[in-house]
Amino acid sequence: MEVKAIGTIHSPFQNASGVPIQPAFAEGAEGTVEVAPEYAEALADLAGFERIWLLYWFDRAAPFKARVKPYLDDQAHGLFATRAPARPNPIGLSCVKLLSVEGATLHVGGIDILDGTPLLDIKPYARRFDHFEVTRSGWIDATHKGITKSDDRFFGAPG
Amino acid sequence: MEVKAIGTIHSPFQNASGVPIQPAFAEGAEGTVEVAPEYAEALADLAGFERIWLLYWFDRAAPFKARVKPYLDDQAHGLFATRAPARPNPIGLSCVKLLSVEGATLHVGGIDILDGTPLLDIKPYARRFDHFEVTRSGWIDATHKGITKSDDRFFGAPG
Repeated sequence: MEVKAIGTIHSPFQNASGVPIQPAFAEGAEGTVEVAPEYAEALADLAGFERIWLLYWFDRAAPFKARVKPYLDDQAHGLFATRAPARPNPIGLSCVKLLSVEGATLHVGGIDILDGTPLLDIKPYARRFDHFEVTRSGWIDATHKGITKSDDRFFGAPG
Repeated sequence: MEVKAIGTIHSPFQNASGVPIQPAFAEGAEGTVEVAPEYAEALADLAGFERIWLLYWFDRAAPFKARVKPYLDDQAHGLFATRAPARPNPIGLSCVKLLSVEGATLHVGGIDILDGTPLLDIKPYARRFDHFEVTRSGWIDATHKGITKSDDRFFGAPG
C-alpha cells in the first residue's frame, strides 16, 4: 500500500522543538497548505467549513517505539494511547482552522505541523461527524502537566 | 512512502451497500479490531479512553474522483469537502467507541467500516484535542437528506 504526497504543508516551525503539540495549543500559529494542481478541483466547497482535518506524513519522525513518554506526562504510555509521531505508519492527524482558500492554497490557523511536511489527505470537520461527548480521555484527563510545545524526543534517530 | 497493515478490522458489513456512513449513524453496530501481535504492547493504557480514532485503508474504494455526490446530498461536492472513500490516498478515519481491550483485540461500537479492512493506526480521542466548537460545517449543515447508510457508489470500478 503506497501513499503519495498530494501537497505540502508550510508552517513557522522549522525544527522539532517548540512546535505546538496539538492544534488546541496552537492558537496563534498560521500556515499554508499547498495542494498539487491536479487536486485543485477537489477543493470545491471546502471553504464552507470552519475547520478541516489534515492527514500528513511525519517525514522526520523517529522509528516506532511501543511505549513513549508523551510531552504531556511524566509516565510512559502505549504508543497507540498517545499522539506521538513514532508510529508504525507515521501518519499525523490535525484539525486546523480553515481561514481562506485561494486557488490551490489553503490558509490555516492553529497549525501544529513542521514546515515542509507532505500532505496526504484533507477531510472536512463536521459537527455531526466529529463532535462526540466523552467523559473518559484516559491519562490525558489525569495529567496536570502544562506543556504545550514539543521538544525533539520523537524526531530523528531513535532515542 | 509505504504503509503497512498493523491489524484487521472486523465488522458485520460484508458489502459496500448498507454500511453506516459515519460512526455517528452506527450506534448499534459492533466489531473488533485485531492488532498484529508485534504491536500489542503499544496498546497499553488505551482502555482508559472512551473513544478512539481508527485510521484504515479503503481497500475496496473506487479510484479518485475530483467531485463526488455524497450520500448525504443530491449535489456533487469537491472530494476534499466530503468523507467519500474515492480519495487520492484512500485513508479512512472513524471515531469509534472503545468497549473493551482483550490482549490484542479491541471490541468497538459505532463502527462504519467494511469487514476485513486493513488497519493503519489507532489514536486516542481526547476531549482536549478533538472537541472543537464550530459554527460552520459547509454543505453538511445545509443538507436535510436523512440518509444514514451507504450504497456502493464509491466502491469497485469507477462509476
